[in-house]
Amino acid sequence: MMRLAIRSCCSARRLLVSRSPRRSLATLTDRDAAFFESLLGKSGVVTDAQDLERFNSDWTGEFRGHSKLAVRPASTEEVAEIMRYCFQRDIPVVPQGGNTGLVGGSIPMKDELIISLSRMNKIRGFDEVLGAITCEAGVTLQTAEEYVQQRNHVMPLDLGSKGSCQIGGNLATNAGGIRLIKYGSLRGNILGLKAVLSDGRVLDSMRTLRKDNVGYDLKQLFVGSEGTLGIITECAVLTPPKPEELRVVLIPMDSFDDAIHTLKSAKRFFNSALSAFEYLDEASFELVKTYSKGQKDFKLQTKTGRVPSFYVVMEIATEAPVDGGDDPDARLITFLDSLGGISDVAISKNAESYKSIWGLRENITSSLRSSGMRVFKYDVSLPARTLHEATMYVKGKLLEEGYRDVRVFEYGHLGDGNLHFNAGSPRSTSPGEIAKVQDAIENHLYSFVKSKEGSVSAEHGLGQLKAKKILYSRTPIEVEWMKNVKRTFDPKGILNPGKVLI
Amino acid sequence: MMRLAIRSCCSARRLLVSRSPRRSLATLTDRDAAFFESLLGKSGVVTDAQDLERFNSDWTGEFRGHSKLAVRPASTEEVAEIMRYCFQRDIPVVPQGGNTGLVGGSIPMKDELIISLSRMNKIRGFDEVLGAITCEAGVTLQTAEEYVQQRNHVMPLDLGSKGSCQIGGNLATNAGGIRLIKYGSLRGNILGLKAVLSDGRVLDSMRTLRKDNVGYDLKQLFVGSEGTLGIITECAVLTPPKPEELRVVLIPMDSFDDAIHTLKSAKRFFNSALSAFEYLDEASFELVKTYSKGQKDFKLQTKTGRVPSFYVVMEIATEAPVDGGDDPDARLITFLDSLGGISDVAISKNAESYKSIWGLRENITSSLRSSGMRVFKYDVSLPARTLHEATMYVKGKLLEEGYRDVRVFEYGHLGDGNLHFNAGSPRSTSPGEIAKVQDAIENHLYSFVKSKEGSVSAEHGLGQLKAKKILYSRTPIEVEWMKNVKRTFDPKGILNPGKVLI
Repeated sequence: MMRLAIRSCCSARRLLVSRSPRRSLATLTDRDAAFFESLLGKSGVVTDAQDLERFNSDWTGEFRGHSKLAVRPASTEEVAEIMRYCFQRDIPVVPQGGNTGLVGGSIPMKDELIISLSRMNKIRGFDEVLGAITCEAGVTLQTAEEYVQQRNHVMPLDLGSKGSCQIGGNLATNAGGIRLIKYGSLRGNILGLKAVLSDGRVLDSMRTLRKDNVGYDLKQLFVGSEGTLGIITECAVLTPPKPEELRVVLIPMDSFDDAIHTLKSAKRFFNSALSAFEYLDEASFELVKTYSKGQKDFKLQTKTGRVPSFYVVMEIATEAPVDGGDDPDARLITFLDSLGGISDVAISKNAESYKSIWGLRENITSSLRSSGMRVFKYDVSLPARTLHEATMYVKGKLLEEGYRDVRVFEYGHLGDGNLHFNAGSPRSTSPGEIAKVQDAIENHLYSFVKSKEGSVSAEHGLGQLKAKKILYSRTPIEVEWMKNVKRTFDPKGILNPGKVLI
Repeated sequence: MMRLAIRSCCSARRLLVSRSPRRSLATLTDRDAAFFESLLGKSGVVTDAQDLERFNSDWTGEFRGHSKLAVRPASTEEVAEIMRYCFQRDIPVVPQGGNTGLVGGSIPMKDELIISLSRMNKIRGFDEVLGAITCEAGVTLQTAEEYVQQRNHVMPLDLGSKGSCQIGGNLATNAGGIRLIKYGSLRGNILGLKAVLSDGRVLDSMRTLRKDNVGYDLKQLFVGSEGTLGIITECAVLTPPKPEELRVVLIPMDSFDDAIHTLKSAKRFFNSALSAFEYLDEASFELVKTYSKGQKDFKLQTKTGRVPSFYVVMEIATEAPVDGGDDPDARLITFLDSLGGISDVAISKNAESYKSIWGLRENITSSLRSSGMRVFKYDVSLPARTLHEATMYVKGKLLEEGYRDVRVFEYGHLGDGNLHFNAGSPRSTSPGEIAKVQDAIENHLYSFVKSKEGSVSAEHGLGQLKAKKILYSRTPIEVEWMKNVKRTFDPKGILNPGKVLI
């Protein structure tokens, strides 16, 4: 009898596992809204259709949810109460930070409850000896940056969206950015974390210790899991001391190989003083000069007197106070000389020229938008040597397949092997044609990425956009174990359904 | 009927969960030995009692297993075959690297099968642009260090045991060491990992990408889990460029507060050029001078002319090639001047003096052993400011409780807030008294650690020694979820039973 019982159970369990968890989830009712209002007050609940707009969509315009309710808790305890209720009622939820993602991770698939962390924006404190900031998840990266800069430190990451993106979202997506080459990823810089689990229990791993090997490092699971294993509500992050000075230099390149050679030399020469190593191709350079105000006048030749095919944007951090002979320009010039007579470079001299040179790299996205083209954006990791090969491969395939009016822009974080392959087709392209171009690029780019054991998402995560692409960069066994972890932490599948794992 | 079946199953499941997994595990038989011999050949199996000695014990002399069988696979596939067999037969296993741990993590509790990774010692390659070494788990840290140094890089960690410890064990214990202050933990430096799961399936996450946000980062689970979730067989680790020069300086301190002040100033002044910030107290200093050959002649006064109560051992890495005025000594002197007239310091001038100064810090452990005392060793993390307070607290309690002949030695990685509290009682102390002293120290030190939200294991892990102490540094909810993760990855409890979670 006992054996029979277990057997029945196992087949029931298989059934549970194979059905989509989404199917059995609840739809929000007026009673739910009333409960949340009683818990959070009127200001903590958003039900007005127009007010909900900004929660149901993001700046990309690519994703649209249909949630009827967003809640705005002000404390971990309130998030816990919300989740206890949702767990009991099988209500699916979407945690939402600054809503600045690129893969639709914070936008509902359907009508999930949106839990906005924006009101949880308190900074708790700063450990001066260690250099650690402790804060709530809804603090924007910029607020955190200003706070730690006042204490002579910097955040270990910097993103274009820092004015809006929130530290909780940065952690939930393991955001990268331009400082990663110097300070490493958030996996190395996270010290503490508090997360609300799917059943409303609070996993309190808020500590500010540099070394702490006591069992499994559960907080790492939440980093990069895009709100599918728990909701990050508080955190402690290591912040490095602020560099004395930042110097940026724009170096024209005859070829991609020259850029790789320059990267290798710069890493050896500057070591940890190298704080960014970015690149862009001629097409991106001309685009920014056309559509961005501050960069019109840049004109550089390569050492062979030709128009450069690539540009390197390299930033050096001067860390120790200068004590006589430590002139960053002298160092830069020694380095540039070692490359073999590059003379035509732009070196920042002040805040204005610093911003202007960086603008060449940073304004690519806005220039693409200003250009009026329909833009296709990609974010892949590859061995750095193969970034241009990837671009050429996809470009070649597009031509072969007759997409002659698609323009390609190649740029990214060369030092991290992170290519932002972008393409644009004329605004007049029909929706059907757009879908075809998109399919063609994805198919060819991701196949190339797979062949080089690269990553289909370097820093943007999977969200809803790339969840289907996971097998390009992960083995079936890896995905199976990710699903096992997901089931362990979210047995009802109520945490950000439809994202990461589908 | 169905409901009944499920109910029976649930209660059966509860039973499974609550009983100790160890109880149902198999004992090795001759048939098992024959199977492993058929798989690995004679040289891959150790059954001789004397040969098994070194697998059943480690250098600490504190732990002793009674395994009758050690296997020495030469490939991931062989480890997988072993685990498939063990999973089927419910045979408990202990993965073993260089066997240099301090908490008995690699020593069997009873008669588990020992899986030694020592034969898996092949280096696969090096990515020059990224600076990543790819190798098998059994490569010693020193071999890896020599390999990457030939390529002008360094391993991101350095340990006293580097000649014996293996990179797989380093990862399995998330080993720290003296370079952590500069290069961060292995969590930030691990790029790829291959692990054999409890059922013999291979989780292949071997990639060498700097940015890779595709689903959950499963490999982080194996880092620091001490062989309880899977067996690490291969890895890829990021290696930073080799510094041009290392300069070490010994600075005498009037007080612990002076050491903290010096730490804060040094972090700001040298930023990422600061490659180690260690400290030791007067007692440790005198001990090393007495028992270690190379350090007899050190004698320094503090700025107030007194015998120092503490010494700081600070290392600076010169990273960029010197181009005229970048004199590391000039920098050091500028820094020391800024501290307010410290004149009596020792600065390394060559390899010999570098080694000699480092010896003051590195030879504490061997000097304690040479002293003939019965030594009690601890490894805790605390807010750096409170390290000396912890020592004084435990010292005071020991005196209060009448342990007057226990000597206390305070040293550690001050820059990481990592205290190595050590104590010694005369060799003549009776075993009963030793147990009492040990209990007293543990009780008081760990209570202090708990009160400051510190860690009972900064870098040594829990192993079998500290598994029972987990609640001093983790909440019950954290432990519960660690156990959930353990059950997900090792449902039969055959991976390193009795370690980490008990």
